[in-house]
This record gives sequence, C-alpha cells and structure tokens, in this order.
Amino acid sequence: MTSDYKKHGIVYLVGAGPGHPGLITRLGYDLLQQCDAIAYDALTPMELIVSLPERIERHYVGKRAGKHSLPQSQINELLVKLAQRGLKVVRLKGGDPSIFGRSGEEAEHLSNAGIPVVIVPGVTSASAASAMSGFSLTNRRAASWVLLGTGHGAENLSIPVPWNRVAALAGGTIVIYMGLAKLDQVVGQLLSAGMDPATPAIAVQAASTGLQRSIEAPLLKLTEECGRQRLKPPALVVIGKAVRCRANETRTGMNPLAGKTVLVTSALQETGNICQMLREKGAEPIPHPTVVRRQADDTAGWERFAKLVEGGGWCWFMNKTEVGCFFAGLFVHGLDVRSLGCFKPEYNS
Amino acid sequence: MTSDYKKHGIVYLVGAGPGHPGLITRLGYDLLQQCDAIAYDALTPMELIVSLPERIERHYVGKRAGKHSLPQSQINELLVKLAQRGLKVVRLKGGDPSIFGRSGEEAEHLSNAGIPVVIVPGVTSASAASAMSGFSLTNRRAASWVLLGTGHGAENLSIPVPWNRVAALAGGTIVIYMGLAKLDQVVGQLLSAGMDPATPAIAVQAASTGLQRSIEAPLLKLTEECGRQRLKPPALVVIGKAVRCRANETRTGMNPLAGKTVLVTSALQETGNICQMLREKGAEPIPHPTVVRRQADDTAGWERFAKLVEGGGWCWFMNKTEVGCFFAGLFVHGLDVRSLGCFKPEYNS
Repeated sequence: MTSDYKKHGIVYLVGAGPGHPGLITRLGYDLLQQCDAIAYDALTPMELIVSLPERIERHYVGKRAGKHSLPQSQINELLVKLAQRGLKVVRLKGGDPSIFGRSGEEAEHLSNAGIPVVIVPGVTSASAASAMSGFSLTNRRAASWVLLGTGHGAENLSIPVPWNRVAALAGGTIVIYMGLAKLDQVVGQLLSAGMDPATPAIAVQAASTGLQRSIEAPLLKLTEECGRQRLKPPALVVIGKAVRCRANETRTGMNPLAGKTVLVTSALQETGNICQMLREKGAEPIPHPTVVRRQADDTAGWERFAKLVEGGGWCWFMNKTEVGCFFAGLFVHGLDVRSLGCFKPEYNS
Repeated sequence: MTSDYKKHGIVYLVGAGPGHPGLITRLGYDLLQQCDAIAYDALTPMELIVSLPERIERHYVGKRAGKHSLPQSQINELLVKLAQRGLKVVRLKGGDPSIFGRSGEEAEHLSNAGIPVVIVPGVTSASAASAMSGFSLTNRRAASWVLLGTGHGAENLSIPVPWNRVAALAGGTIVIYMGLAKLDQVVGQLLSAGMDPATPAIAVQAASTGLQRSIEAPLLKLTEECGRQRLKPPALVVIGKAVRCRANETRTGMNPLAGKTVLVTSALQETGNICQMLREKGAEPIPHPTVVRRQADDTAGWERFAKLVEGGGWCWFMNKTEVGCFFAGLFVHGLDVRSLGCFKPEYNS
C-alpha cells in the first residue's frame, strides 16, 4: 500500500469510525500518523486530529458554526491538488467510507485525475449503535437481514428509498442513517404500507461517544418521543424485533460522566491521556490544548549538562514530556544514554 | 469500560474486522493486549493471536481440519466459566459482532448469567469488500440503501430472507454474506422475481486478506463463473449498479505477492514485522513461529556486567529483541540506564 507515492502523491480514503477515537482501525490510525496532509470533516473525532504530528498539513472541510461544509467539488479539487504536490494524503471520514460516505464519488474523481486511491474501511454507525445498545442487528431469532437506508430527503438522491416496499419485507432489521430530519415522513411511509405500529424501534444519538443517548419506543410513538426528549443529530434509527433481543443493561453505573461534555485545556502532550480517562468514565472530552510543550533548543543547557557528565549529581524530571524531550535532545547533541552514567548509579540489587 | 472486573469477570465481544490484522479497531486491539483470556474462531487473523502476551489464556472455538467448531452452547458455557473465575475475557469474532456474528445470543446468555458484557464493534466484511474493490455500497448515482442478507439456508434461520421481495426493491445494493454455498438458489429467486439478469454483480473471496480474489459478472452468469474459477469461502456477493461505479484499478502492480501464502517460521519476536512486510506486498502470511526469544534468567551474567560497570568496554546488540531483554533485565536487577555510563561515552557533538 505504500509504493513510490513520493513522486505521484496518493490519497487514502479512511473511515474514522462512529465517533469514539478508539474505534478507528489500526491501519487507519497508522496512516494518519504517517501522512503528509489530512482533510477531515465534522464527524471525525477531534482527539485524532489534535494529536497528529505537527508536520502534517490539516484541512478542515466540514461545517463551521453557521456555515455549510465545503461543496463536494471543492473537496475533490483540494484532494487532487494535495496529491499533485506529491503528498501522502488522508481523507478522513466519519463511519465507513462505503456506507453513506461518498467514497465512490471521491475515488472516481481522483482516479480520473490519475491519482492512486486506497480506501480503508471503517466501523459504520449502525454497528456501533447496536453494539453500544447491547443488541445484534441480525439476531437469529428476529432477523435474517438488515437494510441500511438514508433518511435524507429525495433532493439529495437520484433514487429515494422505497420505504413502502421495505415495510413489506419481513423478518429483518431496518436502519435509517441521518434519521432524524425526515423521521416523521419515513415512519409515515412504513406505517401506511402496513408495518405494525408496535414494531420495536430505537433512535440512537451520537453512538459510541460521550453524548450517546437513545430513545426506545414502538414505531408509532418514536417520532413524537424523539421530539419531546429533544434527540439531536447525528442520530440513527433502528427498527425491528432485533431491537428487543437485548442483554440486560449490565453496564449502568459504569459511566458516571455519561452525557457530560468536558473541555480539556491541558498541554497538548497530556491531552490524549486525559481525554482517554474522561472517555472511560463516559464523558465526551473536547480537546482544547492551551499549552504546547516543545523541545527547547538551548545549546548552552547541553553544555551545562556536559559539565555534569564529569562531576555527577541528580537529574530531576517533572513529567513524561520532559523525559521524552531530554532523551530526544541527548541524541540530537551527539550524546546517548551512556552519558547518564554521571548520575551516580546506586546498586540496590 | 474497566470497572472492578477483578471480582466478577467481564466479557468483551470484540469484532476483529474482515481479516487483515490492521482492520481491528484500536480499542479492540488494546483490549486484546490487556485481557486475561481469549476465545477466538477460524476467521480471526492469526497474527493477532500469535503476538499476544504469553500470560493470556487462549481458547480456540472454531472449526479444525475435518471437525466442526464448538457448538454455540459450549462457547457460551466456556465464556461464563472464564468470567466466573474473575477473568477479563475477550471473545474475538471475525467482522462485526452485530452483523451475522451471533453477538446477540452470546450477550444475552452472559447477561442472564449475571456477567457484564461489553460489545466492541468491528468493520464488517461488506465494507471491506467494497473498499478493496474501489466502489461504494451507496454511491449516490446508483443506490440509496444497502441490504445485508445471509446466504445460509433456511435450516439455520427462524426466518429466511425474502429474496423475491428484495428483488422488487429498486435503487439499492444487495450484499449476500456467506454467499457461495447457496448462491444458485438465491440468484434463482432474485431472477425469477424479475430482477434484471444483466444487473452488475461481484463475488469477493477473503476480502482484505492476501487471498482476496473477486469475480465480476452479470447476475445471470455469476454462479457459473464462481464455480468455473473456483472461488472459495469465505466469500461475499454484492449485487447492484453501485458495483460498476468504480475507480479505475489504479492499484494493480502494487501487490506483487497477491494470492501467495507465505509460512513465516521466524522467531516469535520478529513474526509481526515480517508478516506486516509480506502483507504490504499483498501476500497472506501464515505465522508459525518456530523459535521464541526469551529473557535469559542468568544472574551470573548480570554479575559479569556489574564488573564492567567499573572498567568499561563495548556492548554488542544483535537485534531489537536483545536490546529489549537487556533493558528489561537491567531494571529487574536494580540497575538503570545510568550504569551504561561505563561504556565509554564518545562525544561527537
């Protein structure tokens, strides 16, 4: 997957997964760390972006407060330009690029421009929503198929989803992506095509993140309940008997910070660890590093150190970052671990 | 997600992804490294298992040559027993646990036994098959929905997939999981329900692995072609116009070892790197470590080293493993990097 991209440039369309930064694949994560430039949008976890090596060019192509995201044509152009500069580009997308992720359009465009494209799949939101809710989309007692359809209106689609016919299929699970905006219309079509109004249904907001919330109701009541309890996008709706085939809620109480948003203002180097600790307690961390620890370029400091090498003494580290910067500097200045011999080894063995 | 599992035990149902060991999620991989016991089956990448820390108990529950896999009831029992011993257990499954992965059954069983369960989603094979083939399952020009159905016969299912009605839906993509065994029957049902025999279709074997092969043909000819070219399970079939909306095959030639199976007999510590290099060239490595490098427990050796600390000399490392074992031993014997000061620092700065 590497080849001589240096000459030509290459674009990796990478699925970032449903929202939790741990749900990107290892391959996708490695590509992120090794790339030269990245183009990402609103639904990719910010912790992945913030922690990238500094040398990586970052292009945000998603929605900003009050503004729309870049049009698809401009995203396509940006990717082409970056690759034509010989860069190894990661186009990071929420979820899986092949399921409502427009990877097809971007891949075709790049390919037509002569640029090699590799698509790296990701975890799609339906998988996360069912996993986090404790049910299987295809529980054998309830479903032999699962249909993933978009809840977006016809204006975005050449072909709208034939919900009335979907309603007539039996023995499966229906998932509506981007499901909230037109939920009443979609549910209306399903019901008027004869689907049982008591069919179990669940709407899951921001699956896998600290803002995950879900509302379970019979199909007939779902839209009303989502409105009343103010469920917000991004959300996904799952309909079918499989929703009910669920493990008990054994995890309640394990996430004391669920639903809490926490701004993390600590130094960049500590952001990752702190965000992870918060996520493990159920919170949604918003990384906002206000300090960057950087390796100081102080030759005089290293001269002072070189004097110590003869005499000895103590060496005082306050945190992991200092240890890292110390050893990085050590090698830059032509030294190595052997020079630490000056700090009086004590043999307690 | 951690809690006090030490007392109760906990089971993580983790999706290993479609086959490439880099396509497990970071969260799933971390859980693997940190767990106490693992139960895995045939479709999980062997590189993930072989490289696990030695202390982890391994239970293979998949098919062996000529034998069936453990029945589901025995897998359920095994998981309960492991958890009741207070262990942190990972149940590793190919693909995504919620899509034809029986996570529902296992989660319910464990939950009924009072054992906490966490489901960690994975990349499902359909995402991988389309990504690796360069098309999107929901290309907007061709599909507004995708249906994932099982190709297994009715004997395994309480409800068979209503393929005749699926055929009547329009404007979407159909994916058949475990699609080869009964492909003629499923295709027969689709065609006799009026689906266009010229509908584009592709069968993808072992998506994302070095044994990936695919056969593209109009729906009418697909079964015959798969038979003639001897496509083997695990395979997945994708049907619909989206199959045709494809980036050019820009990656041809980047995988010179595609389709080759390579037995890797090197020392356990090097297996991972070698397998990865082989995968990057397109091969399917089969890890078979014949040597394990282990930290030697030679106190006399460390006494000889302690003598050097006064006099100095050289230290000769042949490979990364020796470096790792040296430093691990250093700390075990109450020493640290300062004692390397004996090896004559040379200041080239």
